[in-house]
Amino acid sequence: MTQQEQPYVQPNATGQERVWDTRRQDKRSRLSRIGHLTDGKILASSDITDAITLLLRPGDRIVLEGDNQKQASFLSAALAKLDANVIHDLHLLISSITRPEHLQLFERGIARRVDFAFAGPQSLRLAQLLEDGMLEIGAIHTYVELYARMFIDLPPRVAFICADKADRHGNLYTGPNTEDTPTIVEATAFRDGIVLAQVNEIVDELPRVDIPGGWVDLIVESPQPYAVEPLFTRDPRHINELHILMGMMVIRGIYERYGITSLNHGIGFDTAAIELLLPTYGEELGLKGKICRNWALNPHPTLIPAIESGWVESVHCFGSEVGMEQYVAARPDIFFTGRDGSLRSNRVLCQLAGQYGIDLFIGSTLQMDPDANSSTVTHGRIAGFGGAPNMGHDPRGRRHASAAWLRLLRGEAEIQRGHKLVVQVAETFQRGGVPAFVEQLDAVEVGLTNHMPIAPVMIYGDDVTHVVTEEGIAYLYRAEGQEERRKALAAVAGVSPVGLRSQAADVARLRRLGIVAYPEDLGVSRLRAKRSMLAATSMSDLVRWSGDLYNPPTKFRSW
Amino acid sequence: MTQQEQPYVQPNATGQERVWDTRRQDKRSRLSRIGHLTDGKILASSDITDAITLLLRPGDRIVLEGDNQKQASFLSAALAKLDANVIHDLHLLISSITRPEHLQLFERGIARRVDFAFAGPQSLRLAQLLEDGMLEIGAIHTYVELYARMFIDLPPRVAFICADKADRHGNLYTGPNTEDTPTIVEATAFRDGIVLAQVNEIVDELPRVDIPGGWVDLIVESPQPYAVEPLFTRDPRHINELHILMGMMVIRGIYERYGITSLNHGIGFDTAAIELLLPTYGEELGLKGKICRNWALNPHPTLIPAIESGWVESVHCFGSEVGMEQYVAARPDIFFTGRDGSLRSNRVLCQLAGQYGIDLFIGSTLQMDPDANSSTVTHGRIAGFGGAPNMGHDPRGRRHASAAWLRLLRGEAEIQRGHKLVVQVAETFQRGGVPAFVEQLDAVEVGLTNHMPIAPVMIYGDDVTHVVTEEGIAYLYRAEGQEERRKALAAVAGVSPVGLRSQAADVARLRRLGIVAYPEDLGVSRLRAKRSMLAATSMSDLVRWSGDLYNPPTKFRSW
Repeated sequence: MTQQEQPYVQPNATGQERVWDTRRQDKRSRLSRIGHLTDGKILASSDITDAITLLLRPGDRIVLEGDNQKQASFLSAALAKLDANVIHDLHLLISSITRPEHLQLFERGIARRVDFAFAGPQSLRLAQLLEDGMLEIGAIHTYVELYARMFIDLPPRVAFICADKADRHGNLYTGPNTEDTPTIVEATAFRDGIVLAQVNEIVDELPRVDIPGGWVDLIVESPQPYAVEPLFTRDPRHINELHILMGMMVIRGIYERYGITSLNHGIGFDTAAIELLLPTYGEELGLKGKICRNWALNPHPTLIPAIESGWVESVHCFGSEVGMEQYVAARPDIFFTGRDGSLRSNRVLCQLAGQYGIDLFIGSTLQMDPDANSSTVTHGRIAGFGGAPNMGHDPRGRRHASAAWLRLLRGEAEIQRGHKLVVQVAETFQRGGVPAFVEQLDAVEVGLTNHMPIAPVMIYGDDVTHVVTEEGIAYLYRAEGQEERRKALAAVAGVSPVGLRSQAADVARLRRLGIVAYPEDLGVSRLRAKRSMLAATSMSDLVRWSGDLYNPPTKFRSW
Repeated sequence: MTQQEQPYVQPNATGQERVWDTRRQDKRSRLSRIGHLTDGKILASSDITDAITLLLRPGDRIVLEGDNQKQASFLSAALAKLDANVIHDLHLLISSITRPEHLQLFERGIARRVDFAFAGPQSLRLAQLLEDGMLEIGAIHTYVELYARMFIDLPPRVAFICADKADRHGNLYTGPNTEDTPTIVEATAFRDGIVLAQVNEIVDELPRVDIPGGWVDLIVESPQPYAVEPLFTRDPRHINELHILMGMMVIRGIYERYGITSLNHGIGFDTAAIELLLPTYGEELGLKGKICRNWALNPHPTLIPAIESGWVESVHCFGSEVGMEQYVAARPDIFFTGRDGSLRSNRVLCQLAGQYGIDLFIGSTLQMDPDANSSTVTHGRIAGFGGAPNMGHDPRGRRHASAAWLRLLRGEAEIQRGHKLVVQVAETFQRGGVPAFVEQLDAVEVGLTNHMPIAPVMIYGDDVTHVVTEEGIAYLYRAEGQEERRKALAAVAGVSPVGLRSQAADVARLRRLGIVAYPEDLGVSRLRAKRSMLAATSMSDLVRWSGDLYNPPTKFRSW
């Protein structure tokens, strides 16, 4: 080494010995504090409050399994009962704020800061707590962003998770609602965090292993099974003729036209209508095998008739759906199942598939502005984003081509790329006569009121390729320039404030150019948009289609 | 149900009983054909050819673990020796085509079609085979896109994977190079595919479980350990003064300016220079703790001095790096490690973190056009994309804000969003005097010659926010309109064809506006850009910094 190349700083010249395993030492010390409460990895449910109190320290960053569907409800209730004089100022990472006790943590001063992705049922109370200064929001994420940050700048100290069953070694069986568990556990366990799992049952032998026992530190048998809600069940009785009309237009004007084989559906009644139109209207159009073969989707009951009619090749799931367990287990060619026969879902991998592996996302929205920005946010609420934005955008990291993606080729001569189909469905008026098309999204004011850094837009207009209403389809990606885009959107916005700006001459021109299509332009007869077009019109129809394998939750049963 | 609401199609009225577990039956039948060769799940290595021949059928879609780093080399060699009269027309899914036998599969007619993500070392031969009609390309993906499609429309029938160790139950220990294995196995195992793992050793007890045994069908002890290459090791001896100058500009003009705390680095010598400047130049600027804290990055040896100097809070890894095993194991506060003490990497989760969880991606490029589109593709080669595009774009599915992301706020008054920093580094001329800035990317012609649907662009110009050369930094995101963007790029393109178009008056204006900055504008002295600024100038320096924990591969040792 020449003099000139001598290193600027002499390695190890400071004389200070840094300790490099503080997290591991901390974990060991916390676990040793509850040594008297554990039998191997097992905690008694009656000791849960004592154990959590000894495990935690004020200011800890913790992750609590509130997924989109399943909830570590025993552990969240226990957390909410801690003594705030002892455990306070926790930083909570949680996918979905759904249970009352999630917010009790803040009301009682046990937790102070939250990073989350969705807060549907608790969105009003969350906004109030924020206003009252009882809670700080780190950021509002999509599901995958929140997981991503657990591997970057938000490593959890303790993860409170849930699963169906555990054995004494801590191996976990999640059952069909695998959801977020593997990702949360990986982020925690491999950064020397502590993983505490509530399980419905501790058994000698598991039906299958979803999480290896070596990743899990503590298990507790919960007195009640973890909570889980049937969020993806849409009763066909509530599908109306407008949904059906829009569904027929989507099938003809989008799925058939672009040859959409891989896709994701939202959870609205309009997409449920599409699912129930495939075996009827789709069949009549000769589209079976040509569209809608591969899905990134939870096991929607309304997909049963399409599956039974041979439309569906595969469904990969974010989570499961209450009542669909037996049906899914009996259709392993379609669903991802384990050796035990039941579904294996995985939110992060399904979101990945939904972002990069499919050609079309379609979802309903409640509100859209003239630039096609949309949001489900309403005044006074902080609802979060969930998973839709992850699929409802054009993934610019995508490099592989597909036939449908190439149909939307854009760019200059030599440097072109395709575009994901991002379809937004909205009736021009919501229930109660509230227009869906508005000059400004409520989200703008919600953002300002709550001091958010930017307005909480769910799907950005510049990502949207198609907007479908009961009036017709706006093929926004075909419009040239912002002005033409706005006119195309106005042309399908009916008599809403945005739609009233539409001029007949513009509409005629846009229809000629194929930038707007009305039902008659697509060969869709409004008169045929009847409930008799649906492959099932009731929950009991779905049960029949399933060969009695589908077992709807009580609240969906009328018989 | 009223008459009108009678379902369109009567469920189960066809009288045909469909079988719904064909994949499961197929799996059972294939496994039973090799029953005489297995002892539980264990195959003898001497029987591998017979076993694979019996397991496979012509036309099967298979996934072979050729990751970015580790290779199922025993299994790939065995596949290449199959009798093409018996097994032919396989459809190969493979992340990285890196070994000669990967292409022998096509030369010998055993495989016919390939879906892949990267083909660096074999890119020339791949192009030739394509031209000769010996091979069909399904599509060229990024890593995560290829995994995504395994859950959608490309389910594998058999996965040929590799790991360090297995026990007799099939539980796998991957060691530090976990990489793609969990994702590939999940896609295969839960769709009733067969998972066959080569392992270096079958043992009674594993150091830790990375893949549960229930997901693995067959294991074979390989006569040689799987192959793995040190792809992320950059010898500091090859870092020159231009790299150092660019590194100093990046630290001042980007990292300091935007407060970049979470990031990913490419594998060029320029980013290695940045890593080695943090403990010296960065320290001098008082930036420790303010920038470069949380990384999505493989364990780069050149990051050792920054880690040892206390710059780094965390590193989450796609894979590992040969020689870094002991060092990583001794730094569990920084790296993600298991109970066995060694690294747990995970390519899909680190790509997720790199896409959604960090604020900056910086990578080197070999060629850039006037619109800042860039590519590492050169004539005659089909190199693929690997993982860079997944991080080197603005993720439009991102919804959470961070300070750095908000610094690049764009959009109209009410609907705004931030932007990821996507930084491209290029010397204006490559070795041999070839200009890096060109009128047209070679990728355009490569795309046309090979009948690709679109040109294989690595990073698209409209995603790029900053371009750094030895001349200065173009802050492209600040430019208004395409023309100004081009002028900004030309201003840093030196005497390349693109740079020669630059006008002095434009450059002066752009510098005034802060759209272009030269070293003096950033307070960076060209005279100080010397190798003595580096915290380490040789491999042995890195070893010393590591306290002898880093053990470089022989080819990097000169002592």
